[in-house]
Amino acid sequence: MKIAVLPGDGIGTEIVAEAVKVLQALDLKFEMESALVGGAAYDAHGHPLPESTLKLAKEADAILFGAVGDWKYDKLDRPLRPEQAILGLRKNLGLFANFRPAICYEQLVGASSLKPELIAGLDILIIRELTGDIYFGQPRGRRVATDGHFPGAEEAFDTMRYSRPEIERIAHVAFQAARKRSKKVTSVDKANVLETFQFWKDVMTEVGQQYPDVELQHMYVDNAAMQLVKAPKAFDVVVTGNMFGDILSDEASMLTGSIGMLPSASLNSSNQGLYEPSHGSAPDIAGKGIANPLATILSAAMMLRFSLNQEAAAQRIEAAVQKVLAQGLRTGDIYSEGTTKVGTAQMGDAVVKAL
Amino acid sequence: MKIAVLPGDGIGTEIVAEAVKVLQALDLKFEMESALVGGAAYDAHGHPLPESTLKLAKEADAILFGAVGDWKYDKLDRPLRPEQAILGLRKNLGLFANFRPAICYEQLVGASSLKPELIAGLDILIIRELTGDIYFGQPRGRRVATDGHFPGAEEAFDTMRYSRPEIERIAHVAFQAARKRSKKVTSVDKANVLETFQFWKDVMTEVGQQYPDVELQHMYVDNAAMQLVKAPKAFDVVVTGNMFGDILSDEASMLTGSIGMLPSASLNSSNQGLYEPSHGSAPDIAGKGIANPLATILSAAMMLRFSLNQEAAAQRIEAAVQKVLAQGLRTGDIYSEGTTKVGTAQMGDAVVKAL
Ligand SMILES: CC(C)[C@H](C(=O)O)[C@@H](O)C(=O)O
Ligand SMILES: CC(C)[C@H](C(=O)O)[C@@H](O)C(=O)O
Repeated sequence: MKIAVLPGDGIGTEIVAEAVKVLQALDLKFEMESALVGGAAYDAHGHPLPESTLKLAKEADAILFGAVGDWKYDKLDRPLRPEQAILGLRKNLGLFANFRPAICYEQLVGASSLKPELIAGLDILIIRELTGDIYFGQPRGRRVATDGHFPGAEEAFDTMRYSRPEIERIAHVAFQAARKRSKKVTSVDKANVLETFQFWKDVMTEVGQQYPDVELQHMYVDNAAMQLVKAPKAFDVVVTGNMFGDILSDEASMLTGSIGMLPSASLNSSNQGLYEPSHGSAPDIAGKGIANPLATILSAAMMLRFSLNQEAAAQRIEAAVQKVLAQGLRTGDIYSEGTTKVGTAQMGDAVVKAL
Repeated sequence: MKIAVLPGDGIGTEIVAEAVKVLQALDLKFEMESALVGGAAYDAHGHPLPESTLKLAKEADAILFGAVGDWKYDKLDRPLRPEQAILGLRKNLGLFANFRPAICYEQLVGASSLKPELIAGLDILIIRELTGDIYFGQPRGRRVATDGHFPGAEEAFDTMRYSRPEIERIAHVAFQAARKRSKKVTSVDKANVLETFQFWKDVMTEVGQQYPDVELQHMYVDNAAMQLVKAPKAFDVVVTGNMFGDILSDEASMLTGSIGMLPSASLNSSNQGLYEPSHGSAPDIAGKGIANPLATILSAAMMLRFSLNQEAAAQRIEAAVQKVLAQGLRTGDIYSEGTTKVGTAQMGDAVVKAL
């Protein structure tokens, strides 16, 4: 089992170090190899996703990813910016299925912006399509408008698109995930305005007929953004496109108030996957040893489950995280009165001890 | 002053009737003329936006709009569905500037999903571009894919686009609105992925230089969806494109917990405008006399302010709404223990009395 370890920028190195510590404490044999990615790779090699890093990622069974990005790269041309690394990995490895759980841990209910009764016990799984949609659609660029409101004016444009097999495969992922949960899928679209999402809705409905045991609900994206705030627990599995998924998965994570706890997985059709925390590189707190490593540690657990076929080890990690929370250990982002504030490494050590 | 009154479907007729009552109680001279729109127009004339309705709307100084839509029209072809009426009005009248205030009324803080301290005093203005973007961009449709992940497969596609003058004019609207408020604009984009929104960001920055007294902040749409949940009061004026604005304005409205209170305005460059509540047609409670008419009544106030140049009358209505809230009158959607539950017409009558 080979794991590519790509810590990236900002707090990435610190939090990935803790996840690696936890993986090493398991009695499993992995080969782990690290490489630079994002701004760190740009600084060293002039590109956020150097050939050598991409090669390592392709050859690995799974990628443990930290985070990329820093204000200091903002002035670079888009193809050289850190976030291109993550887009490049998704595209090159065909990581079309993004799993973004939004879970509210019992002990952290108070961290949420929402009233406790609305958020306690939240457990949603957002499944975002990750290699299609307007993220990668061609053509795109700048040109002179030939029609529209201002013919002759300079304009920029992008192409939203989904093909039938792209929608089918993510639909199957969602329905199969729902079978292991409460058998309910909410497909989010904007079929009332977009051709792409009318097609999305049609294909979802078709695929849904192969899963008569799973209830399929369709919801417009604007309504979904509202219902997530109003009654998040009414959702179970949510499936949507790349762009809407970007927005809704972040909204849902933030509802919990503890985004520092939320892992994610991005899989291709051979279950090769990239695992990363749902939060970003937080350059403002980088190097201070105070970042929360739990989202990354829980991402490592997802990696064991989905790509490395080690369910028991995944559960051991998850149970250990529950245990350190029960012990009252908290990094700054989830700290509240009466709990014990710890740093990044202390938290990692506590998880290892709790394994 | 001519007002086109388009009640539409569902609760539309009931809530618009109350707003008309309030307008008639002012000592102002309006000509008001009603017409069918949405499903009601489809039933009567076979089209959601009949020529006669469009003509009336075009000739009026302002349009008082209720809401459109009902499940029973879901099976119609897209061009005949009720929501095409609203898209058609926006397009034909060039209503490019949508104002969506998200205000949390002191007495209604408890209705929010959010903790009181996070939401009390909220007063955000979301300005959504309303005639461009992927809503109207051509080409769009279905075809056989010639490239992408599955060449040869059936696909659907849409075009996102913005031209320089389209971005400039909505930027000016936002900066000018900010000058009358706290002089801070947050422009929401996805410049890290989309050509359209890199251009949006560039043009916003350029226009911003003409408003050195207004602070301009740029934020990615996924982050904006999070920050709205985390700390909504950190925003003041938010400006964004049609698609992102659809999602974020609904999210922001729902944060208040009292979407039944929120008006909206959609203006063109001659200040002709369409005024409608932020909520929908709520077919489930239509005809029961229980819908909240206040969002529509407050939309009529916005109409007086923006299109009819009657600031004093607008303020009279807004003060009257504050007064009925202070009196403890509540429709079902905003009812809480200790207040007095009233129906749609009673609420309208109370506002008239409070004028
Ligand atoms: C960094 C950015 C390109 C990326 C995205 O939009 O997909 C990020 O927001 C995410 O969700 O992983
Ligand atoms: C009905 C629909 C086409 C419309 C939109 O997406 O603009 C609605 O959601 C709105 O926000 O007014």
